[in-house]
Amino acid sequence: MTEHRDTVLTGLDDDTAVLHRISEDLTTKFTGIFAAETVERYVFESYTALARTSRIHTYLAATTARFAADRLKALAQAKGAIAHDVPEVLFVCVHNAGRSQLAAALLAKHARGAVNVRSAGSQPASELEPSIVAALAEAGVDLSLEFPKPLTDDVVRAADVVVTMGCGDSCPIYPGKQYLDWTIQDPAGADLAGARKIRDDIDLLVRELLTELTATQPENQ
Amino acid sequence: MTEHRDTVLTGLDDDTAVLHRISEDLTTKFTGIFAAETVERYVFESYTALARTSRIHTYLAATTARFAADRLKALAQAKGAIAHDVPEVLFVCVHNAGRSQLAAALLAKHARGAVNVRSAGSQPASELEPSIVAALAEAGVDLSLEFPKPLTDDVVRAADVVVTMGCGDSCPIYPGKQYLDWTIQDPAGADLAGARKIRDDIDLLVRELLTELTATQPENQ
Repeated sequence: MTEHRDTVLTGLDDDTAVLHRISEDLTTKFTGIFAAETVERYVFESYTALARTSRIHTYLAATTARFAADRLKALAQAKGAIAHDVPEVLFVCVHNAGRSQLAAALLAKHARGAVNVRSAGSQPASELEPSIVAALAEAGVDLSLEFPKPLTDDVVRAADVVVTMGCGDSCPIYPGKQYLDWTIQDPAGADLAGARKIRDDIDLLVRELLTELTATQPENQ
Repeated sequence: MTEHRDTVLTGLDDDTAVLHRISEDLTTKFTGIFAAETVERYVFESYTALARTSRIHTYLAATTARFAADRLKALAQAKGAIAHDVPEVLFVCVHNAGRSQLAAALLAKHARGAVNVRSAGSQPASELEPSIVAALAEAGVDLSLEFPKPLTDDVVRAADVVVTMGCGDSCPIYPGKQYLDWTIQDPAGADLAGARKIRDDIDLLVRELLTELTATQPENQ
């Protein structure tokens, strides 16, 4: 049914003050690389992008601060303003709630700093898949600070290797990067046994990728 | 099933050249307002944002050019660098495929330049609802150049009035704006009769809003 009435929104937080504070902190962090205005744009755009799909408003300021900081770092790397001394790998899936989170967490764990890892989704979910969080916890990986993020241009730019899983051609193709497409079952709604299987499948691929990256690294540098 | 094989992506277009050309055009258009680097960032981010949900790659360069141009205009308006001489109204729904497209098109038609109108979605669909396109065509409105767009911070900033329909609290709340929430049925999958009903419901609300905006406009200026 349609109600012909206007409802003036009330009771929602005005996050402007905290977003300005985040912008100031990041402006300090990126002094000499980005102007305050650029940083503020990134912070507010990151906030709006996360607010579109995030169900829980409570953590939005905290996730915005981390998302914006990482995007700015990626942009600085792509510009050559921040050292890019290890291979950068970006994992992309549809929801950034299962496959790409698994792959990123496992590669980061095995690489021990020899690779920098990011993940994103073409249509990010509102939260991580609980079975994936549990399957990774069993493997000693804590995902409690992770959250689904939309794919942005900056993280594609910063990547040396882009691994897509199930997100079709939603990721821009730029020259000079290695693009891989892995066929991995979508863990949406999977039980713990299913999540363990997907975790182990991805773990094999991630170990192969790490071997390849660390073997070829001296030639690439 | 899982295949333990890497597939190197091939055959996808590299749109870099056309995106650089769009960036150059918009840099000229916004001379004195935005630096070339800012414009290029907007163009590439707009492209990546649309590529995430667009099913048809063919029109992506054209829609990117229009989306980036309108976002830059919104940003310039919010900064006060471009005249803001009529009320700016932003309609937001979930998919930017039905309700917000209807409302924007009808308000633009009735306002005849007395209001500037934008629309966006919290989770944009891959294309417009065909029944909505048909119902608006009957009312003499051509939607053939429209496309679903994600909600971005710049268009919220530029708005005097933000009207949300069914997208919860996914739209940032900033001070100094009028926020309205309209309860309108989601037209997803509606037949033509259903789309006509939604069109007429929205038309009534849009006419009321226009009366209010044009009546109060002299006091606001």
